[in-house]
Amino acid sequence: MYEGVVQDVIDELGQLPGIGPKSAQRIAFHLLAADPADVRRLVHALTELKEKVRFCRTCFNVAQSELCRICTDPRRDPAAICVVEESKDVVAIERTREFRGRYHVLGGAINPIGGVGPDDLHIRELVARLADGVVTEIILATDPNTEGEVTASYLARQIAPMGLTVTRLASGLPMGGDLEWADEVTLGRAFEGRRVVSA
Amino acid sequence: MYEGVVQDVIDELGQLPGIGPKSAQRIAFHLLAADPADVRRLVHALTELKEKVRFCRTCFNVAQSELCRICTDPRRDPAAICVVEESKDVVAIERTREFRGRYHVLGGAINPIGGVGPDDLHIRELVARLADGVVTEIILATDPNTEGEVTASYLARQIAPMGLTVTRLASGLPMGGDLEWADEVTLGRAFEGRRVVSA
Repeated sequence: MYEGVVQDVIDELGQLPGIGPKSAQRIAFHLLAADPADVRRLVHALTELKEKVRFCRTCFNVAQSELCRICTDPRRDPAAICVVEESKDVVAIERTREFRGRYHVLGGAINPIGGVGPDDLHIRELVARLADGVVTEIILATDPNTEGEVTASYLARQIAPMGLTVTRLASGLPMGGDLEWADEVTLGRAFEGRRVVSA
Repeated sequence: MYEGVVQDVIDELGQLPGIGPKSAQRIAFHLLAADPADVRRLVHALTELKEKVRFCRTCFNVAQSELCRICTDPRRDPAAICVVEESKDVVAIERTREFRGRYHVLGGAINPIGGVGPDDLHIRELVARLADGVVTEIILATDPNTEGEVTASYLARQIAPMGLTVTRLASGLPMGGDLEWADEVTLGRAFEGRRVVSA
């Protein structure tokens, strides 16, 4: 509907996840009116993203050199590895400040329907990391959905012969929520995992 | 939370209208995994946006040369000018295929609280366009809200001495809507503007 470049920008923005044609148009006009320096900064960041960002050789988290910030941090406990699906999950867990070990990013979850098998994930590399005898605990922090559960079970089976402690994040009621709004699977898990408060 | 460039991209995307931190993160990871050619196309379009897009010398619509596509189209009726606030409004009206005249984009609406007065809009240029005697009808298509109404009244007063037909888009019930959901101002306007169907 627009002339040349304006339409190009709307079309390209419209390809991004969560941006529909209306938002794309709004952003295009925002940029058209914006300070050229702001647009240059955005363009620069996007260009650098593809040029500079790679994945850590050890844990496959996003990184800006061979190894990520966490793998090179000597204060992080090398005896515990938390296994997650994506780099976003690393950030979510880091925000809790509960975990001082290291990570392993699988790059997804096993999903036979979507054509993702164990060989498409960084599972071989995880098993190789466990061989050095330093690691003593593996925390399986894949998503609490079907694919995440399948992936966690698969990993548990693979790791079992190695004699390590393998744990899975607790499932249960989300804090700050209302019991009556919890779905039955979550509520069932909360019952299953109930803890003794006093006896 | 992320290392260098990934965080830069999230921060820059988060500045855009309608994109919160979660969407910015989602888009950043989408781009990280995307085909480099797709990202190059987006970067190219954004760069061109600031370099190539300007505003039509006559009507102030977005354009890629001195004049926009509509002002240079000989099939468009030069006797009718539709006055709108923004380029987006031109696209919305073009989509209806109801109007075959030309446009004038004001660049906003009069808004004393927001510090936008008549001199901040392309009103002087509109009045200058009307002086050639070719234009016979002005359609005031500013938004049906307070600022748009104020702007339309102001323009009507300015143009009145020139002896042109000045019209305003009809206000009333939106098509496909439910009468009971209409707000009272809209319903009031619909009564005020009621038309004889048979008498």
